[in-house]
Amino acid sequence: MVKRIAAFGEVMMRLQTPGYELLSQASTLHYSFSGTGVNVVSALARFGHTGYLVSRLPANPVGDAAISFIRKLGITEKHIVRGGNYIGMYFLENGFGVRPGRVTYSNRQESSFNTAPEGTYDFETIAKNVDIAHFCGIALAMNDSVRSLMKRFARTVKAQGGTIVFDCNYRPSLWGDNGYEKAKPHIEDMLHLADIVMMNEKDAIHVLSMKTDKASRHEQVKELLPAVAQRYNIPVIAGTHRSINGDNSHVLQGFMLKQDAFTFSQSLTFSVYDRIGAGDAFASGIVHGESRQFSPEKTVGFAVAASMLAHTMAGDTPMSSESDILRIMTEALGDVER
Amino acid sequence: MVKRIAAFGEVMMRLQTPGYELLSQASTLHYSFSGTGVNVVSALARFGHTGYLVSRLPANPVGDAAISFIRKLGITEKHIVRGGNYIGMYFLENGFGVRPGRVTYSNRQESSFNTAPEGTYDFETIAKNVDIAHFCGIALAMNDSVRSLMKRFARTVKAQGGTIVFDCNYRPSLWGDNGYEKAKPHIEDMLHLADIVMMNEKDAIHVLSMKTDKASRHEQVKELLPAVAQRYNIPVIAGTHRSINGDNSHVLQGFMLKQDAFTFSQSLTFSVYDRIGAGDAFASGIVHGESRQFSPEKTVGFAVAASMLAHTMAGDTPMSSESDILRIMTEALGDVER
Amino acid sequence: MVKRIAAFGEVMMRLQTPGYELLSQASTLHYSFSGTGVNVVSALARFGHTGYLVSRLPANPVGDAAISFIRKLGITEKHIVRGGNYIGMYFLENGFGVRPGRVTYSNRQESSFNTAPEGTYDFETIAKNVDIAHFCGIALAMNDSVRSLMKRFARTVKAQGGTIVFDCNYRPSLWGDNGYEKAKPHIEDMLHLADIVMMNEKDAIHVLSMKTDKASRHEQVKELLPAVAQRYNIPVIAGTHRSINGDNSHVLQGFMLKQDAFTFSQSLTFSVYDRIGAGDAFASGIVHGESRQFSPEKTVGFAVAASMLAHTMAGDTPMSSESDILRIMTEALGDVER
Amino acid sequence: MVKRIAAFGEVMMRLQTPGYELLSQASTLHYSFSGTGVNVVSALARFGHTGYLVSRLPANPVGDAAISFIRKLGITEKHIVRGGNYIGMYFLENGFGVRPGRVTYSNRQESSFNTAPEGTYDFETIAKNVDIAHFCGIALAMNDSVRSLMKRFARTVKAQGGTIVFDCNYRPSLWGDNGYEKAKPHIEDMLHLADIVMMNEKDAIHVLSMKTDKASRHEQVKELLPAVAQRYNIPVIAGTHRSINGDNSHVLQGFMLKQDAFTFSQSLTFSVYDRIGAGDAFASGIVHGESRQFSPEKTVGFAVAASMLAHTMAGDTPMSSESDILRIMTEALGDVER
Amino acid sequence: MVKRIAAFGEVMMRLQTPGYELLSQASTLHYSFSGTGVNVVSALARFGHTGYLVSRLPANPVGDAAISFIRKLGITEKHIVRGGNYIGMYFLENGFGVRPGRVTYSNRQESSFNTAPEGTYDFETIAKNVDIAHFCGIALAMNDSVRSLMKRFARTVKAQGGTIVFDCNYRPSLWGDNGYEKAKPHIEDMLHLADIVMMNEKDAIHVLSMKTDKASRHEQVKELLPAVAQRYNIPVIAGTHRSINGDNSHVLQGFMLKQDAFTFSQSLTFSVYDRIGAGDAFASGIVHGESRQFSPEKTVGFAVAASMLAHTMAGDTPMSSESDILRIMTEALGDVER
Amino acid sequence: MVKRIAAFGEVMMRLQTPGYELLSQASTLHYSFSGTGVNVVSALARFGHTGYLVSRLPANPVGDAAISFIRKLGITEKHIVRGGNYIGMYFLENGFGVRPGRVTYSNRQESSFNTAPEGTYDFETIAKNVDIAHFCGIALAMNDSVRSLMKRFARTVKAQGGTIVFDCNYRPSLWGDNGYEKAKPHIEDMLHLADIVMMNEKDAIHVLSMKTDKASRHEQVKELLPAVAQRYNIPVIAGTHRSINGDNSHVLQGFMLKQDAFTFSQSLTFSVYDRIGAGDAFASGIVHGESRQFSPEKTVGFAVAASMLAHTMAGDTPMSSESDILRIMTEALGDVER
Repeated sequence: MVKRIAAFGEVMMRLQTPGYELLSQASTLHYSFSGTGVNVVSALARFGHTGYLVSRLPANPVGDAAISFIRKLGITEKHIVRGGNYIGMYFLENGFGVRPGRVTYSNRQESSFNTAPEGTYDFETIAKNVDIAHFCGIALAMNDSVRSLMKRFARTVKAQGGTIVFDCNYRPSLWGDNGYEKAKPHIEDMLHLADIVMMNEKDAIHVLSMKTDKASRHEQVKELLPAVAQRYNIPVIAGTHRSINGDNSHVLQGFMLKQDAFTFSQSLTFSVYDRIGAGDAFASGIVHGESRQFSPEKTVGFAVAASMLAHTMAGDTPMSSESDILRIMTEALGDVER
Repeated sequence: MVKRIAAFGEVMMRLQTPGYELLSQASTLHYSFSGTGVNVVSALARFGHTGYLVSRLPANPVGDAAISFIRKLGITEKHIVRGGNYIGMYFLENGFGVRPGRVTYSNRQESSFNTAPEGTYDFETIAKNVDIAHFCGIALAMNDSVRSLMKRFARTVKAQGGTIVFDCNYRPSLWGDNGYEKAKPHIEDMLHLADIVMMNEKDAIHVLSMKTDKASRHEQVKELLPAVAQRYNIPVIAGTHRSINGDNSHVLQGFMLKQDAFTFSQSLTFSVYDRIGAGDAFASGIVHGESRQFSPEKTVGFAVAASMLAHTMAGDTPMSSESDILRIMTEALGDVER
Repeated sequence: MVKRIAAFGEVMMRLQTPGYELLSQASTLHYSFSGTGVNVVSALARFGHTGYLVSRLPANPVGDAAISFIRKLGITEKHIVRGGNYIGMYFLENGFGVRPGRVTYSNRQESSFNTAPEGTYDFETIAKNVDIAHFCGIALAMNDSVRSLMKRFARTVKAQGGTIVFDCNYRPSLWGDNGYEKAKPHIEDMLHLADIVMMNEKDAIHVLSMKTDKASRHEQVKELLPAVAQRYNIPVIAGTHRSINGDNSHVLQGFMLKQDAFTFSQSLTFSVYDRIGAGDAFASGIVHGESRQFSPEKTVGFAVAASMLAHTMAGDTPMSSESDILRIMTEALGDVER
Repeated sequence: MVKRIAAFGEVMMRLQTPGYELLSQASTLHYSFSGTGVNVVSALARFGHTGYLVSRLPANPVGDAAISFIRKLGITEKHIVRGGNYIGMYFLENGFGVRPGRVTYSNRQESSFNTAPEGTYDFETIAKNVDIAHFCGIALAMNDSVRSLMKRFARTVKAQGGTIVFDCNYRPSLWGDNGYEKAKPHIEDMLHLADIVMMNEKDAIHVLSMKTDKASRHEQVKELLPAVAQRYNIPVIAGTHRSINGDNSHVLQGFMLKQDAFTFSQSLTFSVYDRIGAGDAFASGIVHGESRQFSPEKTVGFAVAASMLAHTMAGDTPMSSESDILRIMTEALGDVER
Repeated sequence: MVKRIAAFGEVMMRLQTPGYELLSQASTLHYSFSGTGVNVVSALARFGHTGYLVSRLPANPVGDAAISFIRKLGITEKHIVRGGNYIGMYFLENGFGVRPGRVTYSNRQESSFNTAPEGTYDFETIAKNVDIAHFCGIALAMNDSVRSLMKRFARTVKAQGGTIVFDCNYRPSLWGDNGYEKAKPHIEDMLHLADIVMMNEKDAIHVLSMKTDKASRHEQVKELLPAVAQRYNIPVIAGTHRSINGDNSHVLQGFMLKQDAFTFSQSLTFSVYDRIGAGDAFASGIVHGESRQFSPEKTVGFAVAASMLAHTMAGDTPMSSESDILRIMTEALGDVER
Repeated sequence: MVKRIAAFGEVMMRLQTPGYELLSQASTLHYSFSGTGVNVVSALARFGHTGYLVSRLPANPVGDAAISFIRKLGITEKHIVRGGNYIGMYFLENGFGVRPGRVTYSNRQESSFNTAPEGTYDFETIAKNVDIAHFCGIALAMNDSVRSLMKRFARTVKAQGGTIVFDCNYRPSLWGDNGYEKAKPHIEDMLHLADIVMMNEKDAIHVLSMKTDKASRHEQVKELLPAVAQRYNIPVIAGTHRSINGDNSHVLQGFMLKQDAFTFSQSLTFSVYDRIGAGDAFASGIVHGESRQFSPEKTVGFAVAASMLAHTMAGDTPMSSESDILRIMTEALGDVER
């Protein structure tokens, strides 16, 4: 079924050096606009849903460029508010082989999104017109004001009968010292509201202070997530496990816990072109599978294939259609299509 | 011996997005001009032969650019006729790892080449001044008019004692529904005329409706191609088998059937940068080996090495010299040459 | 008042060489998507209206890229139908000083837009939901099928009480031999339906076979256009006169005939960066002025300033906001804004 | 005489769209690093002096890139302190002809420079090792902490017998409402300390609240600046008058008041490629002329020629050598030098 | 009449910074291959003649690239000899407005062309197969060996009844101290052989030590060149006068002295994009006019129009067709051709 | 301990085609400036030492660009002398997979460095102000004059108590026929002076004519290098062994002989982006380890890790900080750092 989905989140400007040059070597940057919300609703729009972004952007040429880019991605701009002065930015230097890529953030705290005052968004109206709302732990890490808006929006959608998707996305650098402690109450607030949660065993252990004697990630997931689902009353929890081979290929396995039953996808091995945003592709696959009422096997398989394809594309934002993903799930590909 | 070689075929404009971007993401395209005929005679010109293209291009700035590009490749433009209005084009989006590349064609049916009227080319004069003529199954798929011109040219060259090279190159998307049936009589016409044929077991099975109980491609080739050679009286048949490894490297083996004897090359394994045109590099290697009267072993080894190198170069058109290819056949390379 | 505006027209891919290089010199092209309809409704969307495009694009990666681009321009894609196989394209080589730029078209007749069958568009529904529909003489030059669809759409909108805008845009190369004769009946059909017409004295003389003894363009316009307005019952006719100075600067004057009264704008002199699409910027200014019920003086002044700014911007499509245009009408500018 | 010159000021990252594209159209940015201090000391280093920058940059890859760029410009990095997290940035969209360029700032208040705590710089040591220190009204507009550091540095240099250069550079957007009032006491503090001041009649009227009945800028300057020199005891005041012609060429005249005598340069007319930083080129010319003990005529002529050349070069930072400037002062140039 | 034309001269690699950046600012270079001989025979090939280059290039990848480029320009590579190790290069930084462009040469003395030993070229065979040979004073400035080869080739062509074209092209930087004295005997040797000479009054005065009391260039030309024609027995002498306006536009007038009669073209005024090679475009126009037996008026008008167009194109090498030039001679152009 | 290090060596301009294009295919080049000395002292400057280059560059725009680039790399330009006319250049075409990259040199013999006359450098003063001097076998291969300057500088530094680092770097193409014989006396002169030598068993066998019966490189090193150390009285000898896997990854092991004891690093396996300059990164690591008095294990591990990282970066010159290298020695990396 086609859904109306709104994501609450910041739009960031990504500024990337060409090829494998460092910022100290290059003189040009490729720019695009992304963010967890942008990535998820853009992917869902590509799958045929209607995607809104609930965000705030400055009324200046940089904000105009962000709006243009977001429209290009297929997102309906209707719920984007113009105001404030700045946009959050990050610089990306690609890694190569053993050399990791580097991300350098500019100041986000003063961004239009993070300085949005109370009353910026008309949550009541938005909530009446969406089926699903997506939230992310990154926005939760910003400041009290953002957290307050975010929870209000989630409660308003919930009250209207909408589905709440929450991606834990715990980022240590954003929460700072004693981050787990600071994050816990806010993440718990969201878990209590959420219908679909993206997380894994690390979130359970570190953020939710849960304990396990198991050694393998697989076993830890199987022990801890059912406890999480029960404690916070969450119908669907999904996530991925990643490992990196000696030849720099990645291995990715998706899982989903639904109605007390675990489904694990195949472990996919693949070369990586652009890793950023691949988690959002997985999330969009889970939401799409649930919206279309796929079987759990198909949902997890679809989500992990969507994520794998997102690793092979330029930019943060997933660009695959539903048919691209379904095809990669069934065919051994690699030669040119002509 | 140095030969004069003319290829009959279309020149296409290749428009390629940068890096691994999709057409929906990029804003620039790299363009070049190619085509089976262009690729084969350019490669042969690089080996020291004189290469002509028998084709038709519009008398406008796009046609001028095509001519300039073809000259740059070392092809003698003398037999290119200017007329008509359009050039065939294709867009190429590179694949990465598990994500296949995509080719999107513009309309070719109205191209200068495909709308060339009777009398466009002076086949008699051309035939008197060439030793070898090259034809390709792609042009055969275009329309009756092109087919008619093509067969006329082949018969004229044959009548003058020239060598006919025919590359089956069956492309399902060009022949459409019941393609094998439609293609068969035309391909058979060319096989009857040809001295050197590029094909493999799949062409025998699907286009020529031949049957085999063998399971492996290797056995099928060994059973079917001698039957083809006999039925159509073809002195030399050559082709390749390709497979793709899990790490996206390709494995290529060449073979040649000559005077009832099969020669198989080593199986070469290599990383691929640009796969398009690599089959034409193989064909050019076979024609060169036969022209230089190499042993069958050297001819097939040369052709498959030429094809391997073509996979490592930008663009459709092979760019290796004879000495580049001979060296890669004997040396383990990989470090910078300085 | 904010209006809902739909343009019926083709989307073309513009492929431009960098800087001042010829196609024979360059190896990359910058691409974008435009067309009279795209330009006009995009400009109007930027002025705050809702802009739709009624067109047809192929369901392939090139069509996807066109859709993305159009969305980026602020156009609502809702009435774009996917089908057919090709998109019309043109190559642009920039001129410099005395050297004129060159435009080379690819084949448009087989484009998705120009091969759209009867029944492609749901004109009834569209007509019910728009206030204004825009048509252009370029589409009228295509073929009978396009002409038929275009007139049907115009009549349907008219029947619903909508406003019809028609831009004569006579292009000799599209109509061919005896073009004026061929074009006349079709252009007259549109003039009979139109509420706002973009044309000048040359259209009256050549297409509508009207006569004048006046020598200057200014006098010809003043004599002929009232006769046109009367004959076809057209409330508003507007157009521009352009001349080119020795230093390659352009001089542009706009005019509008409304309720038997002529209004002429100032003659603006300016340097030109990208001339294509500047006429569409003028048309969008006239439509906007009429929609906002500006005085005739303000409407023509706004339209000619919009056109002037469009000459200073990259690409076919006007990118100025209403405030940019209002400011240039009142201020002497030139230094950096910081 | 060769001098050691230190500028106190912020390093900003300039992010510029290619050609004449808007941020909404382009996808790449060219980046460089500049600032009034960077521009002035870089120009002076190019003239043979030793140039230091007293500033603060983050210890991250963006800060590394800024340092590399500044070194490339010939500035000695010794007095740059690493700390804080961000760098100020601005986006530049080039104007064309009548369309003005646009500058959009990111948040500067949180930049490493603007958040430098007390004790960041070792002013005592720096002051002992420089002959001249340069300050700019832009830094003065930032916040109390920057103002306090700036005045302390100026007083320390003054106490050591160094020369103080102060460029008023009043920017309305930085000072906000009642800006003149807010700025006045701080600018006066610097004027009391300064030996060479860059300003013009507008600063006298608006910032220093001085009055004049004269109508022309020339007469105003001649009336007001001597009063300023006397009131604040300033040995040298210099500045420029700019006007813009209808063909977008600029006219620039420099002036200098020294020992009660005014010197005016020729009015130079020229086409402009990149206007930003041209004022800093003028300032560097005045400082250089005074350092080399040029006659006032030569100093002003040199400064205005330096500024003119800076308008013809890419980037904020002047790139001309002393000999380039001396040559343009005496020769009619324009053809290629070969 | 279609002619076979061979130019004797060096191929140089041109390495140009992008836009208006200096070598100290940029990080990429655009490269192409040119030279007086390349430019002249390429232009003539574009006019329908057959153009050969008699030159020597290294047998390495840089030489391969030069050959490819020359072929692309339409030059027949047949008389290019491979040998030696290096190619001459020059770096070009574009000027802007009052700021002149700069050319920096790499070492040419060791280039393949300038180190070609006796016996490198088969002048006898070449001379038998050409109608016209072109020589340039730049090559004459190189070294004794080049001068010796050059004169031998000229005498061989002359002996076969061919036409000798000589372009004085005196470059002070190449001849060094006492350059006029050193150059005179060699230039005189060539003048004695030449049928068409490109020179102006400055060459007569400085190189040939002729005297005149006239003040204007026009009068000097009219007095001196007939004396030159008589002294060296030269049928045709042609040249140009250039001046540069305050707005950086150039004014160019061509002249030709033939059978004691002077013909002067119109003075053309135009904006300049790339000045290098424009003199070669003029020379090619004169040779073409003489070959086609145009009237003197048409020849000079054609040559100066060809030169004007060459100023508006990227690169050293003229790219206009005969019809482009004829059209610019008759039409006032400037708008896009579409 | 922080050291002052001067390298004596040539600065070369590296001109590289984009991506995987050949010089015959591309039209742009990326340029940078490097050289063994540049690479080593730049790396050491990045580790916190003060790095000087003792070299000579032309006083023209290319020389200016080289100076700017070197400054950007962190090298103190103080001991660079301006003079001569040319800079050595090399063209780099990247290889891909089995296809090796190609380096083509321009003429170096006439470069400013290689034509520096006696008395160019003030070795006495330099020697007094440095702790370490670095020399390379490449410069030794140039000509007698360079060799004489180099040995003089080495003896002067030695006499002042400085440390001499010598990298054998035998390049067959530079020494020509009988190269080993020609090189031996010069290399021996340097070995007698050196405190730290970069070499391996091949240098011992071929240049120093030593013999061994061992078969493996490992055993040969262990037998021969102690003999070298003894014969020439060298405290430290270090080097690397490289092998290339079938998947084009490289394996690198470093070794160091110090006080009769051998230390071998781990064998590191990694993908290669840019191989040039990786040997200089190893040398810089050895010098740094010795300067900081690391244990032999840490020194060799640091050097080989520095070299590995240099293979993953664009350009010849190592760009890693000490902390980047220390981290890669201890962590398994590969995912983005954010």
